[in-house]
Amino acid sequence: MSPVIDGLQYANWSEKIFREMRAGGVDAVHATITYHENFRETVLNIEAWNRHFERHPDLVFQGFTADDITLARETGRTAIFFGSQNPSCIEDDIGLVEVLHRLGLRFMQLTYNNQSLLATGCYEEDDTGLTRMGREVVTEMNRVGLVVDMSHSGERSTLEAIDHSTRPIAITHANPADWHAALRNKSDTVLRALSGTGGMLGFSIYPHHLKNGGACTLAAFCEMIARTAERYGIDNLGIGSDLCQDQPDSIVEWMRTGRWTKRIDYGEGSADAPGFPPMPDWFGGNADMPNLTAGLRDIGFSQADTDALMGGNWARFFHDSFGPAK
Amino acid sequence: MSPVIDGLQYANWSEKIFREMRAGGVDAVHATITYHENFRETVLNIEAWNRHFERHPDLVFQGFTADDITLARETGRTAIFFGSQNPSCIEDDIGLVEVLHRLGLRFMQLTYNNQSLLATGCYEEDDTGLTRMGREVVTEMNRVGLVVDMSHSGERSTLEAIDHSTRPIAITHANPADWHAALRNKSDTVLRALSGTGGMLGFSIYPHHLKNGGACTLAAFCEMIARTAERYGIDNLGIGSDLCQDQPDSIVEWMRTGRWTKRIDYGEGSADAPGFPPMPDWFGGNADMPNLTAGLRDIGFSQADTDALMGGNWARFFHDSFGPAK
Repeated sequence: MSPVIDGLQYANWSEKIFREMRAGGVDAVHATITYHENFRETVLNIEAWNRHFERHPDLVFQGFTADDITLARETGRTAIFFGSQNPSCIEDDIGLVEVLHRLGLRFMQLTYNNQSLLATGCYEEDDTGLTRMGREVVTEMNRVGLVVDMSHSGERSTLEAIDHSTRPIAITHANPADWHAALRNKSDTVLRALSGTGGMLGFSIYPHHLKNGGACTLAAFCEMIARTAERYGIDNLGIGSDLCQDQPDSIVEWMRTGRWTKRIDYGEGSADAPGFPPMPDWFGGNADMPNLTAGLRDIGFSQADTDALMGGNWARFFHDSFGPAK
Repeated sequence: MSPVIDGLQYANWSEKIFREMRAGGVDAVHATITYHENFRETVLNIEAWNRHFERHPDLVFQGFTADDITLARETGRTAIFFGSQNPSCIEDDIGLVEVLHRLGLRFMQLTYNNQSLLATGCYEEDDTGLTRMGREVVTEMNRVGLVVDMSHSGERSTLEAIDHSTRPIAITHANPADWHAALRNKSDTVLRALSGTGGMLGFSIYPHHLKNGGACTLAAFCEMIARTAERYGIDNLGIGSDLCQDQPDSIVEWMRTGRWTKRIDYGEGSADAPGFPPMPDWFGGNADMPNLTAGLRDIGFSQADTDALMGGNWARFFHDSFGPAK
């Protein structure tokens, strides 16, 4: 049987959620552990994860290699793979790429909405592409096996990252912009370049990325996946739910504003709707993962294709991506 | 054949020294990577080591488990195991024990001469033993597989560490005080408690720890080892040369004074001899390791006992110590 893998979550992790992961049959998750935190703060977040692993060894453990997906299935647990949504964690120090990889970081976004030291975020007016440091860091990430994630980056930066990277990159959580026009969803140009180089797209269930938002039906979401698979092939597609289960609204404010502004930045929200938008009724948390599997089957995906979309493709990508470059 | 392992060095690491390690047949070294550096500074030192490993993969690589000793022998390289001579690297944060273990730290001294947050150093007037945090940290070190090293600690603290630790500890670099009376050498009481619990003693060649200092002969050093083996058994003895090859005198000042004083503390030196003392002519660097082997054989140790002293005992200790507690 194929594993079930979620390519992006940032939940308010707890025993409750870990138990829901088991109930939902989730074998592995790419979990965001840091946004705007600097290196030391990121290490504090890792320490908090270590406490989770020590307290709940029957439910979760830290994933380092694709073999840990197998281990998770064999032992009835969920493997947690660390990721960062912004490069704040490496500060201005390329040496921290290898250090954080050793600590288990497996994905790092080059930007989160704003300009970073490495590239331009999708909310900036001008996208100047990869910076000098950005090119060096992508090369270093390629060397050690830390996946470049461009989910929140601008178009030019994303295309340059795909081009500069010698290994396939990922857009862990976004949808095609021609299905739902959103700054965070991706153009045909980007998706063609991504899939053409073996890069993965994780379909997002964050309501701002969905046509009709939280009212988007499961069938409509799965139809969007089918159309994307027709256009770009099915091999490089997976789920990246962007699930922020049980998070208070204060967290969405931290994601959006970090310490870069004293004002409120609403990101994909607005002054009228500043918090987390309500999720679709078919995906309120990890326990709902089987709904996705059923939804894909219901609109006509074969079992094999459903398995690939629900985790098989991520498993192959994890296998090829997390070790040192050959 | 048995491996050759040095239980403590703090050299001015370079390609030259790495090549001398190969010339001297040194399969593994416990290398001090940090003294008074805080966590972030220690990580910078790890980054510098990563550069060594990247530049000289044919000579050295980082050791994590005892299997890496075998790998080193099979590939003709030296495995470098990280250690800290002081707990500054964990600051006041017990969570950093696991984080640093993940980064490869395998030994940590609870004190370096002075009082620390964990225990009392051998230069303090009053030794109050393990602190509240000290006991917690020893327990955590036991859990993850980070060896407690009491080389620079006071007598009471050392005895309490031996008693509190559920796993054998190490005194990686010191000699018996009744052979040469020095604040850093260890009493019969300590050595009896250490060896009685399976703890390792690494014999130091640092001249301040030797009878007659740098004029100590190889035969006298090896005779001291023989007397120690007679008294405490041979199974828990090894070499911990304390070699500071190619280090400038500014480094010994950093070791001794860190940032804890604005004055000069001469440690085991003096105002007349503030720098590194000259080494015995039979041990000027890593390439001289075979002299030790020959010296042990010359005074009558069997080949098997010589192998045990030159690395076999450390290899067994590494195997038993570096993984999580059973």
